[in-house]
Amino acid sequence: MILDKVNNPYDLKKLSIEEMNALADEMRELIIKKVNTTGGHMAPNLGILEATIALHYVFNSPVDKIIFDVSHQCYPHKILTGRKEGFTNPDLYLKYTGYTAPEESEHDLFKVGHTSTSVSLATGVAKARDLKGEKGNVIALIGDGSLSGGEALEGLDNASVLGGNIIIVVNDNDMSIAENHGGIYDNLRLLRETNGLAENNFFKALGFKYSYVENGNNIADLITAFKTVKDAACPTIVHIHTEKGHGLTQAVENKEAFHWIMPGTLDNKEIAPRISGECYESITKDFILNKVKENPATCVVNAGTPGVFGFDKNYRELLGKNYTDVGIAEEHAAAYSSGLAKNGAKPIFAVMSSFIQRTYDQMSQDLCLNNSPITMLVYWGGISGADATHLCSFDIPLISNIPNMVYLAPTSKEEYLAMLEYAHSQNEHPVAIRVPMGTVNSTGIKDTTDYSQLNKFKVEYKGEKIAIIALGGFFELGKQVKEEIKSKLGIDATLINPRFITGIDKELLENLKKDHETVITLEDGMLNGGFGEKITRFYGNSDMKVLNYGSKKEFTDRTPIEELYQRYHLTPELIVNDLRVYASK
Amino acid sequence: MILDKVNNPYDLKKLSIEEMNALADEMRELIIKKVNTTGGHMAPNLGILEATIALHYVFNSPVDKIIFDVSHQCYPHKILTGRKEGFTNPDLYLKYTGYTAPEESEHDLFKVGHTSTSVSLATGVAKARDLKGEKGNVIALIGDGSLSGGEALEGLDNASVLGGNIIIVVNDNDMSIAENHGGIYDNLRLLRETNGLAENNFFKALGFKYSYVENGNNIADLITAFKTVKDAACPTIVHIHTEKGHGLTQAVENKEAFHWIMPGTLDNKEIAPRISGECYESITKDFILNKVKENPATCVVNAGTPGVFGFDKNYRELLGKNYTDVGIAEEHAAAYSSGLAKNGAKPIFAVMSSFIQRTYDQMSQDLCLNNSPITMLVYWGGISGADATHLCSFDIPLISNIPNMVYLAPTSKEEYLAMLEYAHSQNEHPVAIRVPMGTVNSTGIKDTTDYSQLNKFKVEYKGEKIAIIALGGFFELGKQVKEEIKSKLGIDATLINPRFITGIDKELLENLKKDHETVITLEDGMLNGGFGEKITRFYGNSDMKVLNYGSKKEFTDRTPIEELYQRYHLTPELIVNDLRVYASK
Repeated sequence: MILDKVNNPYDLKKLSIEEMNALADEMRELIIKKVNTTGGHMAPNLGILEATIALHYVFNSPVDKIIFDVSHQCYPHKILTGRKEGFTNPDLYLKYTGYTAPEESEHDLFKVGHTSTSVSLATGVAKARDLKGEKGNVIALIGDGSLSGGEALEGLDNASVLGGNIIIVVNDNDMSIAENHGGIYDNLRLLRETNGLAENNFFKALGFKYSYVENGNNIADLITAFKTVKDAACPTIVHIHTEKGHGLTQAVENKEAFHWIMPGTLDNKEIAPRISGECYESITKDFILNKVKENPATCVVNAGTPGVFGFDKNYRELLGKNYTDVGIAEEHAAAYSSGLAKNGAKPIFAVMSSFIQRTYDQMSQDLCLNNSPITMLVYWGGISGADATHLCSFDIPLISNIPNMVYLAPTSKEEYLAMLEYAHSQNEHPVAIRVPMGTVNSTGIKDTTDYSQLNKFKVEYKGEKIAIIALGGFFELGKQVKEEIKSKLGIDATLINPRFITGIDKELLENLKKDHETVITLEDGMLNGGFGEKITRFYGNSDMKVLNYGSKKEFTDRTPIEELYQRYHLTPELIVNDLRVYASK
Repeated sequence: MILDKVNNPYDLKKLSIEEMNALADEMRELIIKKVNTTGGHMAPNLGILEATIALHYVFNSPVDKIIFDVSHQCYPHKILTGRKEGFTNPDLYLKYTGYTAPEESEHDLFKVGHTSTSVSLATGVAKARDLKGEKGNVIALIGDGSLSGGEALEGLDNASVLGGNIIIVVNDNDMSIAENHGGIYDNLRLLRETNGLAENNFFKALGFKYSYVENGNNIADLITAFKTVKDAACPTIVHIHTEKGHGLTQAVENKEAFHWIMPGTLDNKEIAPRISGECYESITKDFILNKVKENPATCVVNAGTPGVFGFDKNYRELLGKNYTDVGIAEEHAAAYSSGLAKNGAKPIFAVMSSFIQRTYDQMSQDLCLNNSPITMLVYWGGISGADATHLCSFDIPLISNIPNMVYLAPTSKEEYLAMLEYAHSQNEHPVAIRVPMGTVNSTGIKDTTDYSQLNKFKVEYKGEKIAIIALGGFFELGKQVKEEIKSKLGIDATLINPRFITGIDKELLENLKKDHETVITLEDGMLNGGFGEKITRFYGNSDMKVLNYGSKKEFTDRTPIEELYQRYHLTPELIVNDLRVYASK
């Protein structure tokens, strides 16, 4: 194998074009096998393979700096920069993260997993080079899908006036995770159709030098283009037209499904739908579809990640004009939803917990300050074993401390449906719901709560001495803690389902003082700035003892969730043990 | 006066061009007099006067919807929409806010004060119109300075594919608050120089229909242009070239200083520098200048608001290439700073508390996850009587709950200097400092603390029974509370200066348990998600009583600060009274 001779980017420079083409085939096979085994980003990595080889052939990393956007297209880069064992040796498949990681290699400058960051980061890297009087190329690699993000657009606007060398490689495969949305994509299409020659050129309008490579999967063409711009003294765009999933027919034919795949996808005859049977995603989809039928002014909004919500192509077509994918543009999504609501439409903005981080000011100013009545559905919120870049444990501190926002945490299908109904029908506030995940918990009893009466907690079981306030996804844990307390301490504890994240039920909390000595709060997210601290503050000047459970303020990185639960004492046994230790003090 | 006949936009439609020109003169005089009396946004409102008249003449607000960006150019609009008394009657000068406000008028759709929001909001408003099958024009009015913000750019990318009527009026006065920065401004210049005819057109590249008005202060020209695009069936840009400060020589000659003026500015012979004598702004400026001299890789970054920090034109020239104004682009500013730091430069990112809200995800992902060692200076943080759009009481919850961030709260000049030195010299973390405001408090004793030892609180005075933990700007209040406790309760309380916002000193807090029964926390910002709640959580399961003082979770709007201090019990008298009440329970 040629790859045997390639242990770092410098080994690549000894190869002929033919050898590099053969190397690409070898790498493609390795990536397909690895990703099909572990799951991961398939199509983006196959599309950028040749460009990665060409980049490392022409430029001299790490003296020249290559900065990846999102970095779910960094597998070929990892193979070429000393980490090929993570692709050749199945025992080491999980050794390296799926994203760039400076702790793994000097060729990775940043830990990146959110999109649209590379241009701004690269502009800073290039400016530092210039301030230090150093030489070298700074290259940002960004996909067309990422271009729509505000951070990328702000970055382009600034990179173009840097005054020195910065090379932005736009990897245009005519796809975001799903299809692209936005005016910029019409321009990219025009540029592709004119071999880059159209007068109307978004990048030139911003002041960049511009060049185009029609066959972005051809190593020789790419090398020629990169050699031309190497050491350019001014901000430069190289627009390369690649094929997402290149070299794997199934991926090319089904680019969206192969953006990120589950293990074993290639071994199945048909691509299994990511979601089947009743689940909270399907419950949500049914609810939305009914609302669209009832009121044509219902509008579903999301920012470039329809797969997170199970909004597959068929479903999107069903929604038709009542569906807006704004592309990767969470800020716009929030403000757009506010505009919809203020003019009498009924927006439902679906967003993943980790990505709601991209739009704090729009939640605060455009939505909450204006009290625009939208429904915001926050998916995947909770402690997880995810990569550090995709943690979903920060949404409660982020969202719930904004005035006027109502943030709800359902614990069952019935509660979720009642909350959806309330959020969608009211006209008072932005209402966010933390969409439950996992197995559907059905009580079988319709929830008739009037949620417009804000901040009313529900006593699920009235006991004594100890009260457990168990929020949303941790309500089941609350039940288990109650049982453990009964069995180990012989205490018949009270169990409370708070339902509201954004406010406390002062009357209920006050009443607890009569026959309770200890309150336990459980929340599936970070304690700092979260839900439990408000309860503790309420009791700060009383005799009530309060123990808060949730995650610590830290970035964890692919840490198994069981390990995190142990670390944060999120098991019935550990919590009861804490109660024993404290009681003995 | 012609204005006597104009009580709403419909009255305008009866006027001739000559009458409207005369009306513009009358309105200009009123605005100049009012703003010079109360202070406020002068130059932006003078520049947009004629365009506002033309918009209301051509379009039919509120059926047609006009949506302002930032809305510091809405005074002429207010005069024409039933609120002229706020400009004709000095007694009512403060009756109306300086921003659009739906509670004041049906002609104001949104409460807006942060920039770059109008296009996204308008896109939502237009989409709602289309979903409801209604007619009418939706107009977004946005200044050139606001175009660089990610939200505006995301909005433009989406507005251009709306498919229906949306008219975006780009008010190009070739100025942001200060001068513009970014590639887009080269394109605007090119368009101005070619009377809008240049092939290379940023807006056309995004898919808009485009027209240009060279004399954007000529009512007749504007009316012609607006009539042409009225009821346009597709997304349309009207690029109007206006003069910031039009009709007031001093404002035209000094556009930046006249963007927002203090009361009486026109009556002074010279424009007084906003900052004079020693103050925290001047201390900061001196520190930065010294660091730039010591190390040419020092780089000062800000996002379009140099005036907030006293970075006047002379100072910016002194900094030269070590100064980057990224334009209104806070996301880029944060990520750019991370790039600078990772390549060995020493960035100092200055930002106003209210605007740091525009870059949460970049703080989290680009800065904190990567532990990029930058210095972030947060100005104006604290409870204030500001407009609802410019509150600065949310930065502690926003910033301090992000892992890896170090957020510091100095209480004196000497502490501030030591913290600046630490932040700038270390290589471990992003370090934010809440820049003190107001009178400089000098201890006269150099602070030699090693701030790399994180989360060490300082006991300023060791007393007993009650411990006051007084953060940053409220340290002086803490001293007063201590005195009040001594005089009214006869207790010699402990006074603690925590210095670190992002972590608690567990050892010190544990030790307090020995001889203290009550802890009081004081913070100049929102309690929810803030500093005090962490102290309370620490003591949750102990006998220590904790009282947290700070602001409530609410948007206040020009509420006098004394009233807020009363409301939140932020006076020594009210706090001691609380202690009495609690003690009697």
